[in-house]
Order: sequence, then C-alpha cells, then structure tokens
Amino acid sequence: MSLTLGIFDSGFGGLTVLRAMLPLFPGTRCLYLGDTARLPYGSKSRETIARYAVSATQFLENQGADYLVIACNTASALALDEIRAAANVPVLGVIETGAAAAAEVSVTKSAIVLATSATIASHAYVAACAELGVHAQEKACPLLVPLVEEGWAEHSVADQVVRIYLDEALAAAKAASTQPDTLLLGCTHYPLLRPMFERHVPQGMRIVDSADVTAARAAEILATKIPDSIAPATCEFFVTDSVARFAHLGHRFLGRPVNQVTHVDLGD
Amino acid sequence: MSLTLGIFDSGFGGLTVLRAMLPLFPGTRCLYLGDTARLPYGSKSRETIARYAVSATQFLENQGADYLVIACNTASALALDEIRAAANVPVLGVIETGAAAAAEVSVTKSAIVLATSATIASHAYVAACAELGVHAQEKACPLLVPLVEEGWAEHSVADQVVRIYLDEALAAAKAASTQPDTLLLGCTHYPLLRPMFERHVPQGMRIVDSADVTAARAAEILATKIPDSIAPATCEFFVTDSVARFAHLGHRFLGRPVNQVTHVDLGD
Repeated sequence: MSLTLGIFDSGFGGLTVLRAMLPLFPGTRCLYLGDTARLPYGSKSRETIARYAVSATQFLENQGADYLVIACNTASALALDEIRAAANVPVLGVIETGAAAAAEVSVTKSAIVLATSATIASHAYVAACAELGVHAQEKACPLLVPLVEEGWAEHSVADQVVRIYLDEALAAAKAASTQPDTLLLGCTHYPLLRPMFERHVPQGMRIVDSADVTAARAAEILATKIPDSIAPATCEFFVTDSVARFAHLGHRFLGRPVNQVTHVDLGD
Repeated sequence: MSLTLGIFDSGFGGLTVLRAMLPLFPGTRCLYLGDTARLPYGSKSRETIARYAVSATQFLENQGADYLVIACNTASALALDEIRAAANVPVLGVIETGAAAAAEVSVTKSAIVLATSATIASHAYVAACAELGVHAQEKACPLLVPLVEEGWAEHSVADQVVRIYLDEALAAAKAASTQPDTLLLGCTHYPLLRPMFERHVPQGMRIVDSADVTAARAAEILATKIPDSIAPATCEFFVTDSVARFAHLGHRFLGRPVNQVTHVDLGD
C-alpha cells in the first residue's frame, strides 16, 4: 500500500503543517507546492485566488497526490469549494479543521482567532466556528508574518508584539462580555511563535494551532491508508519562484533542511 | 499660468512625497494615483511593474498632468525608462533624486541606504549613487512598512526595530571599513519614522529623506512654472482599490484629511 499526500500553500507557512504531518505519516510520499511567485494571495480577488489554487492542486494531483491538504488560509477561506469541485481526490482545508478543534476544546464556546488581515477580512473562521456553535472573536495581527519571515520569531520584539496583540484581543473580549477559553492560531506562520503565545495567554486558556490540528485530522481520516511502515515520510518540494530562497527560508518553518526542491511554472 | 502635477505610487507611501510638495507648489493642481488594487509591486516581475506603471502614468496624463513624479521606489527602480518612453511630459523618479541628494551632502562619499527588500534587491540605489561617485551600502528593513501601516510609527516597538536595523547597518559599515556620513531613507513610508532615525543616528550623520528631496527637486525644476499664487495647492486622489481604506490610512501619511478620492479601474 502506498500513500501520496499533496500539501499546498501560497508560500512557506504551510511547511509548519507538513512538519506536524511528517511524524504521523510513516512511509508516505509528501509533495509540497509553494506558489511563491504569486504570493501574497491575501491581496488578490477571490476569482484570481481560486484560479491559482485550482491550478496548483491540479499540479499536485498530476504528480500523484491521493489526498490534498490546503495549508493556505487565504485559499481555504476563499476557494475551498472551487478546489473541491475541480479535484478528483479528497480535500482538507486548514480553516474547517481549526474551527472543529476549537469547537472540541472550548467549554465556554467562545474563542479568540488570530490571523492575517486578509484571513480576518474574509470572516471565514467566524463562519466556520458559528456553524459549530462557537463564537469567534477575530483579531488581525499584520506584524506577525513579517516578524517570522525576518527570522525574529524568538526575538524580544516579537515577544512584545505578541503580548500587545493578545492584550488587545483580551480587552476586546472583556468589553464584549464574552469569555473566550480558547486561542485559535489561524495562520500557518504562528506555530513558530507558539512559545510566546504560551507565555502570554491567561491561565487556563487553551491554544489551538491550525497546523497541528490539520495534521492530526488528516491522520485520523487517512488512518486505514497510512502505510504500515517504519520508514519516515519522504518530501518533495515544488515552488514557482526561487528554489534557493525557498530552501533557505523553508528550513526555519520545516525545522529541518529543505532538500529536493524543484522549480515549476504554473503560468500567470 | 496653471500647473498640474501627477504623482504616482503603488499605494499610500507616495503621500509623504505629496505632503512635502504641497507647501512648495502654491496654486498648483495635484493629482495623486495610488494603484492600491495591484500592490505590492515589490513581488512582481519587471515586465508587470512596467505595464502597471505605464498605464497609471498615462491615466494621470489623460487627467491633465503636465509633469509626473514617480513616488514609488519599485517603479522608479525597475520601470523608469519605460515610463519615460511612454510619457509625453517630463518624469522625475524618487531614486535618482535621493541619490543626487546623498551625493550632494556626503563628504566621505559613502552612504547607508535603508529600503524595502524589493528595492534593495534591485540595487537601484547602489547604481544611482555609484554614477555620482557615492558608495551606497544597502540594508533591507522589511519590518518598517508593516509597522507604519499598522499605525505604530510612534510606538516603542518601532523605535527598537529602527535602532536594531540602524545598528546592524553601522556594524556592517564598520566591518567593511567604510565611513558613511549620510543615511538615505529609500522608502516613502520611512518619513513617518524620521524622529526615530534622528534619535538613533550617530552624531554628525545626515539624514536624506527621498520624499523631501524629491519635492525640493521638482520645485527647483519647475520654478518658472509654479503659479504666482497665494492659494494653496489642491489635491485630487485616484485609487484602484477601496476609497474608504485609502482615505482612512492616507490621513496618516499626508498629515491631513484625504478628501476627493475617486475609484478608477486600470484593468489587470
């Protein structure tokens, strides 16, 4: 039995999802596509994002993917229906899994969601949480991705920024008289800041990291298909922009060297 | 006698150039185009940027501009020749004026240039400075634009980040045994951080702000064409994305309310 997973993101962030998946998928072939030439998706129209995401996931299917993980929050928020309609294999998106995990752990049925401005503007987490009976209070954190990409994920400046955003979100919850007991990290860059979130959340608040829960959910769904193997998962990477830059920056997100990177052209 | 200026930027930053121009251009009609739907230009190819910039400046000419100021560093770095070739009126770019001002004030003929990653990657300031006999040492500062856009231009976090970037640039200059006596702010967002730069530069180092010097240079070139008027300059704004967002964010950059904003569609 063999299993090939296709993981798609607009850039590097999805590597935190892949990182969480690797230990859960022994003997599995993992294909990662980072559409780095066309990022950021966040500033583009829904139609453009859908077109990009469909071409990207079709590429992964053509490479043999049996299952697709949309590790890109923007594409999951705006184009999941189009991706599902175009795909011949099952598709899992980070937003639905993040919301489901928040619904599972929250006792008060109230969560704070931190994400990029584009994800927050889509209100996709609010909608996904509401369907599961959870009130989500959103907070855009536009400085966190630049801080992680600058390599400052462990810098005191990042620690201050995390604390400020979290304090603002908690103050807004207090003003709205809600009782959030769950913090949902709704961006695949944020797992790199997790130690800071853990340091600053109020006691008792649970952190749900959409990378972790997406990996766990995929492993649950595919339980009967994961090879009975002691070999580690293998990784191949495809990027639409610089291979060197991806390998260099990607190391930090994946937590190990990024080898086997191939450049591909998906058009405009 | 009447004068109409066209100022072009991919977004908001060019408003610092317009802000510096207004007191120098009494009785002048100022048209500002922010191509906010297609930003950021920094991550796009040279061909795409040239196409966008040419369509934008042609729009300004069609609205009556007698003179064009390219307040966008990326477009100035990558597409100035194409813009000049397509334009029927004179064109001034922020990079050439910034480099000229650095050459004028630097005694050691050595400057530090701070800019976005995209501008630094183009090495346009190094080339423009070298032509004028000035050695430019570049430093990409990817966190500064997000900090300004988050509204944290006066925040202690921004102060720390400015100090760190400046210290790194000074340490690199020391390691290279150069003696920079000039700091060139090569991004139109950076004037909002100027008090912090002033606080942290070594004593005797001059700050050249490309917004200020572009405004001064335009006034010099157009000296005989500026209306002999006591009326203030008037402003009209055109944007390709949300009018409301431009008016809201733009206030901070222009230092006064942004009214008279019209949405325009320049295509894809």
